[in-house]
Amino acid sequence: MRSPTITVSDVGEFGVIARVTAGLETVPSTIVGPGDDAAVVAAADGRVVASTDLLIEGRHFRRDWSTAEDVGHKAAARAFSDIVAMGAVPRALLVGFGAPPTLELTWVDGLMTGLRAECAHVDAGIVGGDVTAADQVTIAVTALGDLEGRAPVTLDGARPGDVVAVCGRLGWAAAGFAVLGRGFRSPVQVVAAHRRPEPPYFEGPQAAALGARAMTDVSDGLIADLGHIAEASGVRIDLRGDAIPVPAKLREVGAALNVDPLVWVLTGGDDYPLAAVFPARTDLPDPWVEIGAVVEGEGVRVDGRRWGSGGHEHFR
Amino acid sequence: MRSPTITVSDVGEFGVIARVTAGLETVPSTIVGPGDDAAVVAAADGRVVASTDLLIEGRHFRRDWSTAEDVGHKAAARAFSDIVAMGAVPRALLVGFGAPPTLELTWVDGLMTGLRAECAHVDAGIVGGDVTAADQVTIAVTALGDLEGRAPVTLDGARPGDVVAVCGRLGWAAAGFAVLGRGFRSPVQVVAAHRRPEPPYFEGPQAAALGARAMTDVSDGLIADLGHIAEASGVRIDLRGDAIPVPAKLREVGAALNVDPLVWVLTGGDDYPLAAVFPARTDLPDPWVEIGAVVEGEGVRVDGRRWGSGGHEHFR
Repeated sequence: MRSPTITVSDVGEFGVIARVTAGLETVPSTIVGPGDDAAVVAAADGRVVASTDLLIEGRHFRRDWSTAEDVGHKAAARAFSDIVAMGAVPRALLVGFGAPPTLELTWVDGLMTGLRAECAHVDAGIVGGDVTAADQVTIAVTALGDLEGRAPVTLDGARPGDVVAVCGRLGWAAAGFAVLGRGFRSPVQVVAAHRRPEPPYFEGPQAAALGARAMTDVSDGLIADLGHIAEASGVRIDLRGDAIPVPAKLREVGAALNVDPLVWVLTGGDDYPLAAVFPARTDLPDPWVEIGAVVEGEGVRVDGRRWGSGGHEHFR
Repeated sequence: MRSPTITVSDVGEFGVIARVTAGLETVPSTIVGPGDDAAVVAAADGRVVASTDLLIEGRHFRRDWSTAEDVGHKAAARAFSDIVAMGAVPRALLVGFGAPPTLELTWVDGLMTGLRAECAHVDAGIVGGDVTAADQVTIAVTALGDLEGRAPVTLDGARPGDVVAVCGRLGWAAAGFAVLGRGFRSPVQVVAAHRRPEPPYFEGPQAAALGARAMTDVSDGLIADLGHIAEASGVRIDLRGDAIPVPAKLREVGAALNVDPLVWVLTGGDDYPLAAVFPARTDLPDPWVEIGAVVEGEGVRVDGRRWGSGGHEHFR
């Protein structure tokens, strides 16, 4: 006999809250955790880095394409990638959660499992949140981070003569999205990349320590996000096409779907790699790949030619 | 000739972002404001207080009952009231905003006007945010605050022998909600209280300085929220019915709608007053009203009798 599905309305708002806060790990930076009016988080640096993201079902994730656990991983990764792109270390996550009353409680459990695992990966605490009913599954994540004495790496510090480098996967999530969009579930590597991004968490603070002048996480696409650096810094960014890595797996998927994989690499979001600008002759450690240079001018070019922005437009 | 309505899809995601970040006031605590990957906010205290709330159209506000400006005021007030309930001073607000593509751009302008005004009132900066499409108007607010060296005032510090006091309006928003629910638009005082709460921002840090042992903002209703203090502290809270203020205006509205106004006072949320527990014989300054005492036991009683929790249940 199959037991009936338990929904969030069966346990109610306070039941959901009790469930999502039960067994949360405590990390050293959490002074007051969930359950009070507000959280208190250590900020020994005297500054706090904060970023917020809103994920809406059907826009940022599909429940038939990703498990609840995947969505939890991705929501936390998305927020933390903004923190590391400033050169900071993630410390805490706050989660606002809206759901239809009919949502299965196991989905909430899966979401929390994913959020908790991603937080544990960076040693951040889930310190607070809010639960409400909504027509669509809605996840609002706010991440807090610690600069540990470093200067924040903003968008506006690129100068002509600097070099441009990237770190982390580029185009994998876009390839996975294309695969899922055509009704396939494999190759598993690109589908998994879409479901659970793996931002280079360590390399953001590393870049700051190496003297990065400007940095961003790639969420709108490499060209679009480097465009934000170019605009904020008042410079042009020239990329060398042959320096931009297009992995064999993406070429293979591109061939199968009749898509130029370079389009995924240059315009795909959702992998959350880092793109940074360093002074020339910076000795870049291994995961960083130099892909271009900063010059006078404006915009972003690949081998001297413009690309469309390719960024995701939410109201289109 | 009437000009056509401009919607958020007409200007697009980046147009909306440009519009909501244009002309944002800078406050001293903002080190890096909107437009970068994340914000950087001063936290001289070495700790940061953080709270997040998710407001959904049709659940937390109705666009036919409240203007966009009202909703902005209320969203910020709701977040800041959690900060002051810890004894902290609001410093920054992050705003996630989701909207149907057909939403009028003037509604977004109004929302920002309300958010900005409430932030200016407490000298907090709007430091970051996110914009996306959603089926319902969705507002995720995260507030950050500064304890200025004080200990956080949590829920669990109440001890038998302490006194219980409140500060700020109680029941006004619930009366306004009842009035609007019956199709009326007046009395304006209670309708305005529902649309734009006026939390006692100054009195939260004041209570901390006076030695408050426990404090909360009343968002679920006085009985329900004092119940959270009673539970966390392992005590019972006894209220004296004759000490709880029921203003003449609420008696008047109650008589007109055939509702006992004490129900609004004891169970209404959305006014965001403060309820705090102080050591006996604390010399409470004027806005604070002593309404009861902490004793051994559990739960909350009024003149020795239990009330239903009366808290708002979102999935009911």
